[in-house]
Amino acid sequence: MPLWLDTRSPDFGVSFKALLSMKREAAEDVDHAAQAIIAEVIARGDDALVAYSKKFDRVDLSALGLRVGAEEIAAAHARCSPEALEALQLAHARIVAFHERQLPQDQLFTDSVGVELGWRWRPIESVGLYVPGGTASYPSSVLMNAAPAKVAGVARLVMVVPAPDGEVNPLVFAAAKLAGVDEIYRVGGAQAIAALAYGTPTIAPVVKIVGPGNAYVAAAKRRVFGTVGIDMIAGPSEVLIIADGSANPEWIAADLLAQAEHDTAAQSILITDDARLARAVDAAVSRQLSTLPREEIAAASWRDFGAIILVSELRESIALADRLAPEHLEIIGPDAELLSQDIRNAGAIFLGPYTPEAIGDYVGGSNHVLPTARSARFSSGLNVLDFMKKTSILKCSAESLATLGPAAVALGKAEGLDAHARSVALRLAPRPS
Amino acid sequence: MPLWLDTRSPDFGVSFKALLSMKREAAEDVDHAAQAIIAEVIARGDDALVAYSKKFDRVDLSALGLRVGAEEIAAAHARCSPEALEALQLAHARIVAFHERQLPQDQLFTDSVGVELGWRWRPIESVGLYVPGGTASYPSSVLMNAAPAKVAGVARLVMVVPAPDGEVNPLVFAAAKLAGVDEIYRVGGAQAIAALAYGTPTIAPVVKIVGPGNAYVAAAKRRVFGTVGIDMIAGPSEVLIIADGSANPEWIAADLLAQAEHDTAAQSILITDDARLARAVDAAVSRQLSTLPREEIAAASWRDFGAIILVSELRESIALADRLAPEHLEIIGPDAELLSQDIRNAGAIFLGPYTPEAIGDYVGGSNHVLPTARSARFSSGLNVLDFMKKTSILKCSAESLATLGPAAVALGKAEGLDAHARSVALRLAPRPS
Repeated sequence: MPLWLDTRSPDFGVSFKALLSMKREAAEDVDHAAQAIIAEVIARGDDALVAYSKKFDRVDLSALGLRVGAEEIAAAHARCSPEALEALQLAHARIVAFHERQLPQDQLFTDSVGVELGWRWRPIESVGLYVPGGTASYPSSVLMNAAPAKVAGVARLVMVVPAPDGEVNPLVFAAAKLAGVDEIYRVGGAQAIAALAYGTPTIAPVVKIVGPGNAYVAAAKRRVFGTVGIDMIAGPSEVLIIADGSANPEWIAADLLAQAEHDTAAQSILITDDARLARAVDAAVSRQLSTLPREEIAAASWRDFGAIILVSELRESIALADRLAPEHLEIIGPDAELLSQDIRNAGAIFLGPYTPEAIGDYVGGSNHVLPTARSARFSSGLNVLDFMKKTSILKCSAESLATLGPAAVALGKAEGLDAHARSVALRLAPRPS
Repeated sequence: MPLWLDTRSPDFGVSFKALLSMKREAAEDVDHAAQAIIAEVIARGDDALVAYSKKFDRVDLSALGLRVGAEEIAAAHARCSPEALEALQLAHARIVAFHERQLPQDQLFTDSVGVELGWRWRPIESVGLYVPGGTASYPSSVLMNAAPAKVAGVARLVMVVPAPDGEVNPLVFAAAKLAGVDEIYRVGGAQAIAALAYGTPTIAPVVKIVGPGNAYVAAAKRRVFGTVGIDMIAGPSEVLIIADGSANPEWIAADLLAQAEHDTAAQSILITDDARLARAVDAAVSRQLSTLPREEIAAASWRDFGAIILVSELRESIALADRLAPEHLEIIGPDAELLSQDIRNAGAIFLGPYTPEAIGDYVGGSNHVLPTARSARFSSGLNVLDFMKKTSILKCSAESLATLGPAAVALGKAEGLDAHARSVALRLAPRPS
């Protein structure tokens, strides 16, 4: 049974704080192991990849090959159901359309003193995309990571995915093909991250690495950060649902469970001003649980991390939501839009009764890679800008330098940086002939 | 004497690769020390800050107080030269004007199937700004970090700066006041980062921490990342100058030295197609060096990390620059703008003979916090978006859900996530009465 809180209870402040600081992830210390694997890949290249794949994935890549060939991808595609392929195509088209709106504009302008300045965006040259293997191998995540990279203009997009016992979900290959992934290698774990960061004879290094993975992958990404760019470190998924009495308890329960089924460490929270709805949702969760293939996972998540918070009026939920900073936030009720406008911290907001979070996971068009573990307070979901970077541009004329130069000289001197001051001052003097 | 390379030499490829992988920073392993300091601040709060400040900065904060009061800031302001204050004001106004152009637009649109979607930008609620003490305590860096945060709308901007022997550069306080910093605490090192991340009775925690610092500060920032957001980890500064024979060798030499004087680990590189210019610049550097107050630092940087690269034609420099991915890039010559358009990797580009890099350090308006150590391949200089985050918005109607829902159900089932599929499917059925 989930945690029940009530803002009218005298110990609410303490209980809510405990909810906020609930540790959902065992901080598995795999840093040393990841470090050793990285060193081995740097030293032994492809041989290390083959050896680790044999050890961890029970697959012989010296026979199968590291790189997945075009025929193999085509064969995988042929094995997918037409229904799933069609759904992937719809999802991809919508993701591309949404993310194309994120393409930034360059700016170059001349200011009042005649300085030309601005900035220019350019795509990152090459990106590595990590895709987990086994049951967490989601074709939708391939689309969510690859499509924005391609929209940004990334020229070389490299996917790595482990092949436990030689197997990869064929829909993952189909999604990669659809999204324009340029190279696929069947290797995973910290060794795949090392190969992407430092390169091997077979895998040329990339400039940035994105995509979720297990604790080893996360530790390796932290280690190689600096040598390459990385995206966020993903934590267990979470949803907060704010609903008034108008909500359908079965639908709310289904949404809470859609989050809970991801992972025993996932978190589903309901905030409502209606105690009757709260009880109905709780009962519906119990009922629906027993019919789920992933019942065990979802039940553990709901039992250990689920919460129902009663408030006296729905506006109270805004401050609570901002402190929880949920990855996913559903708001249901006549005031949904009004309430949502005051929310500052959330990865994504799903408005109204007909927007279950799962729509955003697949076909909404917005990205499903979103900040977890309260990091929506300071970061955004994956977007096109994550695959670009900007260069600022500055151009002074002799005249504009004459206007600005003296202040730069003054500041250089004030900071004790005389060579800074001189590099400007020299140009203010008449040009030596 | 700097390294001399020539693209026409048969071993150029190997030599250039060696230049690229030159390790300029001793990887001082202070991670354990930083970890211990953080744990102490979490456990003992203000007392730990007082104790570390006594130990590392030789200052008694139990007498002086952690927080810097308004009168003290006003007194510092009064001690600054009018000339320096005026220069700071000009710099601040230009930085604000430039960064206001970076404020992003929200988007909310209805797509062809009737889904309302888009995103909304919000400022990060609170930000901590680390400012180094002693000789690296630069008022210009206070402006460069604080102004974009305030333009973004950060409500609470907290500055920490160590006070070795009780002293802080008065211009640093003046810059903080000018830029609208809300709170100042005279504490530095890993202990200041811990206080900002976890809070103490005196210092309320912030949501993101920015600003450069020494190895302990960098290690502490890596450690607290996740609990709070952080900016990039700053490395030693660097400049690449691409110039043809039209360039004034004295000016180029001054620009190379303006970079070299920062740090013995700074790096200054010249690429030119004119051997005569190369020799003249090298000679001018030697001459100018002897007149610099920071001669020793600049000489060591130029000797150990400086380089002059001769190319047969200037277009060759584009590929070299992209591989070096310099923090600062000056391009001088009639083709400067044309060449610059093909550069993909650079923090900032300074065009033409009248744009010494130092102008960008102070009064250009663009930000001087830029990616170092080749990270311009995957990251951008500090900007307004670093102080904001976006929330995506999705709203389906019953009709648009009916259009998109079946594909979401198909993908949920294909991924083995039945609760995902059900949360959509329930809403496609006639609503239970």
